[in-house]
Amino acid sequence: MIRVGIVGGTGYTGVELLRILALHPDVELVAITSRGNAGEKVADMFPNLRGHVDLVFSDPAEADLKACDVVFFATPNGIAMGQARELLEAGVRVIDLAADFRIKDLDVWSRWYGMTHASPDLVAEAVYGLPELNREAIRGARLVANPGCHVTAVTLGLLPLVRAGVVDASRLIADSKSGTSGAGRKAEVHTLMAEAGESFRAYAVAGHRHQPEICQTLEIAGGEPVGLTFVPHLVPMVRGIEATLYATLKGDAGDLQALFEQAYADEPFVDVMPPGSLPETRSVRGNNVCRLAVYRPGAGDTVVVLSVIDNLVKGASGQAVQNMNIMFGLPEAMGLRTIGLLP
Amino acid sequence: MIRVGIVGGTGYTGVELLRILALHPDVELVAITSRGNAGEKVADMFPNLRGHVDLVFSDPAEADLKACDVVFFATPNGIAMGQARELLEAGVRVIDLAADFRIKDLDVWSRWYGMTHASPDLVAEAVYGLPELNREAIRGARLVANPGCHVTAVTLGLLPLVRAGVVDASRLIADSKSGTSGAGRKAEVHTLMAEAGESFRAYAVAGHRHQPEICQTLEIAGGEPVGLTFVPHLVPMVRGIEATLYATLKGDAGDLQALFEQAYADEPFVDVMPPGSLPETRSVRGNNVCRLAVYRPGAGDTVVVLSVIDNLVKGASGQAVQNMNIMFGLPEAMGLRTIGLLP
Amino acid sequence: MIRVGIVGGTGYTGVELLRILALHPDVELVAITSRGNAGEKVADMFPNLRGHVDLVFSDPAEADLKACDVVFFATPNGIAMGQARELLEAGVRVIDLAADFRIKDLDVWSRWYGMTHASPDLVAEAVYGLPELNREAIRGARLVANPGCHVTAVTLGLLPLVRAGVVDASRLIADSKSGTSGAGRKAEVHTLMAEAGESFRAYAVAGHRHQPEICQTLEIAGGEPVGLTFVPHLVPMVRGIEATLYATLKGDAGDLQALFEQAYADEPFVDVMPPGSLPETRSVRGNNVCRLAVYRPGAGDTVVVLSVIDNLVKGASGQAVQNMNIMFGLPEAMGLRTIGLLP
Amino acid sequence: MIRVGIVGGTGYTGVELLRILALHPDVELVAITSRGNAGEKVADMFPNLRGHVDLVFSDPAEADLKACDVVFFATPNGIAMGQARELLEAGVRVIDLAADFRIKDLDVWSRWYGMTHASPDLVAEAVYGLPELNREAIRGARLVANPGCHVTAVTLGLLPLVRAGVVDASRLIADSKSGTSGAGRKAEVHTLMAEAGESFRAYAVAGHRHQPEICQTLEIAGGEPVGLTFVPHLVPMVRGIEATLYATLKGDAGDLQALFEQAYADEPFVDVMPPGSLPETRSVRGNNVCRLAVYRPGAGDTVVVLSVIDNLVKGASGQAVQNMNIMFGLPEAMGLRTIGLLP
Repeated sequence: MIRVGIVGGTGYTGVELLRILALHPDVELVAITSRGNAGEKVADMFPNLRGHVDLVFSDPAEADLKACDVVFFATPNGIAMGQARELLEAGVRVIDLAADFRIKDLDVWSRWYGMTHASPDLVAEAVYGLPELNREAIRGARLVANPGCHVTAVTLGLLPLVRAGVVDASRLIADSKSGTSGAGRKAEVHTLMAEAGESFRAYAVAGHRHQPEICQTLEIAGGEPVGLTFVPHLVPMVRGIEATLYATLKGDAGDLQALFEQAYADEPFVDVMPPGSLPETRSVRGNNVCRLAVYRPGAGDTVVVLSVIDNLVKGASGQAVQNMNIMFGLPEAMGLRTIGLLP
Repeated sequence: MIRVGIVGGTGYTGVELLRILALHPDVELVAITSRGNAGEKVADMFPNLRGHVDLVFSDPAEADLKACDVVFFATPNGIAMGQARELLEAGVRVIDLAADFRIKDLDVWSRWYGMTHASPDLVAEAVYGLPELNREAIRGARLVANPGCHVTAVTLGLLPLVRAGVVDASRLIADSKSGTSGAGRKAEVHTLMAEAGESFRAYAVAGHRHQPEICQTLEIAGGEPVGLTFVPHLVPMVRGIEATLYATLKGDAGDLQALFEQAYADEPFVDVMPPGSLPETRSVRGNNVCRLAVYRPGAGDTVVVLSVIDNLVKGASGQAVQNMNIMFGLPEAMGLRTIGLLP
Repeated sequence: MIRVGIVGGTGYTGVELLRILALHPDVELVAITSRGNAGEKVADMFPNLRGHVDLVFSDPAEADLKACDVVFFATPNGIAMGQARELLEAGVRVIDLAADFRIKDLDVWSRWYGMTHASPDLVAEAVYGLPELNREAIRGARLVANPGCHVTAVTLGLLPLVRAGVVDASRLIADSKSGTSGAGRKAEVHTLMAEAGESFRAYAVAGHRHQPEICQTLEIAGGEPVGLTFVPHLVPMVRGIEATLYATLKGDAGDLQALFEQAYADEPFVDVMPPGSLPETRSVRGNNVCRLAVYRPGAGDTVVVLSVIDNLVKGASGQAVQNMNIMFGLPEAMGLRTIGLLP
Repeated sequence: MIRVGIVGGTGYTGVELLRILALHPDVELVAITSRGNAGEKVADMFPNLRGHVDLVFSDPAEADLKACDVVFFATPNGIAMGQARELLEAGVRVIDLAADFRIKDLDVWSRWYGMTHASPDLVAEAVYGLPELNREAIRGARLVANPGCHVTAVTLGLLPLVRAGVVDASRLIADSKSGTSGAGRKAEVHTLMAEAGESFRAYAVAGHRHQPEICQTLEIAGGEPVGLTFVPHLVPMVRGIEATLYATLKGDAGDLQALFEQAYADEPFVDVMPPGSLPETRSVRGNNVCRLAVYRPGAGDTVVVLSVIDNLVKGASGQAVQNMNIMFGLPEAMGLRTIGLLP
């Protein structure tokens, strides 16, 4: 049994980790911390966990996280970079669901996150936790940086094209749409139901933190600079991300459907749908799968890729558990073999 | 032109007042105050008002509200009771959309609102602004207490039965359901879209402030003590209240449909639907009408009344404007003759 | 391995059966029939099943259902009553998710369902599949009538009160609210998103088929006639039922919380929440649990019970699998030990 | 008073026409036809109209539409092309909300709409009813082809760029998102709440009828061939369209904000928002305005335009009334001066 701790368990990625891990056959939940809710039963805050999780939130200062085999940080940005080192030195492996270790270029990171990084050496060490890209490195990693939610949907959709060099990488467009749980469980006006319900809008059009994260991965994959226009939108629903991706083909691109199917042939959590499919977010609700469809409208030189994930699963906690499974040599799908909740 | 001021215009009842009043042919919007947003253009916060409202939020301390003919308080509970007197003494008429002047029994009020009342004499003077009950008193009122949202839906549905004495007033049940805009434009976790969306639950089952307010009115109307079980629920939508009301008939109640039609025959904003109708909240979206249907399932002794309103219109700002029209001798429907937004 | 067949798999209870059964460790899915979609891959219609269900819809005339150990009917009312006999005679056990075998009084059944019953003897034999009431009888049953969705929420909420005889059974009220998946996967105008979205209304106020079904169970449980006013409502969401139940206490009812906790102490799928709880439908999304809370507002003689289920799980397909587990001597929770999807 | 008839009033554009026209000060509603619902009161089908519209649906064969000054066709595609001529010859002006007269190239039209056109000469005569483009021609028109909903949002967003020649017109991208009312009031499975609710997906990615309609307009405006990739999406809400538009700037484009502000300086129903704005669909709910914002992320050569409308108002019935006002020399905003319903 892998002994698991969670730092910061009162947000949506925290409760989603608990939902998955509580039924994981090889995991023992040891501790979950919360500064503000120490002493409260976890299942009192999240009643779906009643009967499955008996833990009480513990004070971060008192939790014996060093006795864990792995600790997940489901905290705001800027926490893990200060606390991970002590755990790593104690032999605990760390998976950060926030953005502290995602971006290798510290200047870029500081510009987007508005902080100076506390642990540059750990950024260098951290493995970017996209299994479809980095499975081998994740296997041996002490510290994994779990990708962002929009990032996962967009990157998996563009990766085969960029890696194969069949599109103009300098002119990619990602029009991404997310349910409101992506904004987290924070008391804010703009994600109230009365603000975000029955309405649709873009946000962060001038620039969003996920843009450099996507570019970093695609540049590694394609071996050339990437130009990406990324526009996120807020959908009046709770869960799910759909990204519609546009790229310009260079010369004869060949059979794009085959390109995608081959790229993900061995991937347990990427599903390339048949030609003409229309992936819906609900087909992956509560589920760790990314579903893709690829189009070439009018047989022209624009390729359109549709990509859907559950932002809290493949976009966060499910992918984190997938990473844990890889790190500890477990079957990669252990605890993640569920079926999307449709309808 | 009636010169209108609004105190506390950054909440949903505030923007709804502006939406209605900006198109009211006999109103001049003079001032709208906000402590936190003074100096900001109203239409920057509420872009639906662009091109219709040029006002800037003004600091409450600087706004010349005494130059108004009427001031609406769209503030949290406990504000109007401290500020209304000065305006009244200056000859300004006041309509309070909060609860400060709704409950005549000050002990009851203090128990539910957790405050000692600052102006007991004004409570005594205030006219309860339900036009269907108090039209004549409203006409001459200086100070009007605008009813609560659940209250309006429930009271209009039970009033004909209680006034006619055909039901057991000691055992009334009101199962009321509200969209999340009823909770106001406040940063709180429980009304986030990710909390309230795609889910349904009751709240305040042990007791809710609207219960004594409903009882007060029904006791006046029926001339006997009222026992009411009131359970509010949160619906995953933005606007609308539906109340399903249950009462036990005493003896032969006669023709209930006729009772309701006669009770509201002259009311411009109460619509008794034909037998067998199923009022939907969307039929009154953005509109000041209360739609009612009355049933006697299985011809038994239980009467079921269905009542729908838009919580922000007939349940708040529309009713406040209706009161203003009455107070100033205008046609009662002026500025309120709109059609519900369906679909 | 239990060999399972499903008749009529293109509706929501059908796909939900597949979602649950595909991961059930002791089930082999043998056949799923559909007259209209024979030859189509199930996972093409329901892409959430991709990678989990390889079945093709088969023509009812050709499917070898007699080779199954159990057949689920996920069909419209009136189908199973004609087809169950042949299967039963072949030694196949049958679970009907429709209403054909739920009501023992054939006159009542015909009145509500508008048909003459084709198999009165099977109605007499059928066991009503509410495990909390009939576990032992289900164990030996050849034919199980799976309860209705509103019925399950309402019955589980009222059962402890009626069985203990602490309420006036002649005057019960059930105000029930359902997501739109309860109306099924049928092309109809009134459940279009543009009709049912962002709106709330009651339906079938004059009378609904679930009313006699609830009464039948409560009369058996309480040993006295039951009078129930049942009003269903349509909630702008996909899944979930919340029923708010009102009853009048007779004399000193004692500790209601204890009454409920004892009534369901050994039930794996009924969760009596602590005093003051507010059950939300999302806490049981995708999950087979019924969550209950009991209130006595103002310490008066009205008891209020809140009951939530997922209409497609405990209200249909999950309960059907629970019944299958009982019938075949499997652990009752096998394949059903999931956690509600929150948020 | 303009005497108005509506053909096919049982869909969403029909009820929306009624909602607007019933309060239009210069309109008399004379007749509304429906083959299937002749004899039924309009307000029985659409209860929001109770008290405002007393009309009964009349049989198309019996309605005296020739006595009208103008007739709106709110019918499926292919109806108006057969019936408009007789009305036109009788001196009635016609506004078609369907697609019969939108596309000048009859081969293109036939390919997308799967019919041979019944009245090619009327296609040639018809004026495309986008006032921002064709105001003068609309003024004198007998026959107006009202634009499509996605089309209006996309065209108004791209028009200033294409007309000014500052973008590469051969490589435009329109990622458009619509609420489900855009699919009409038809009994279909895919727009059921239980299908379209709490989910998001693209549709018609391989090709959509609105693509050639947009191109036709932009080619006229820009004087060069247009290449457009158009991908529509279905949003889990009732009303509203948001289009996010991407284009590549050619050389120095100058001040894009000024370009847009000047392009629409005199337009009553196009609102160019200040730099940095995020148009939300709810800001135009029930309202005839198109709100636009223009961005140049990272000061690069990609321009992003955000465009929102209410698909039933500026995207259909509101624009049709705007066209009527222009055709009859009325103030263009008559009957359309409302404020978006926010929240």
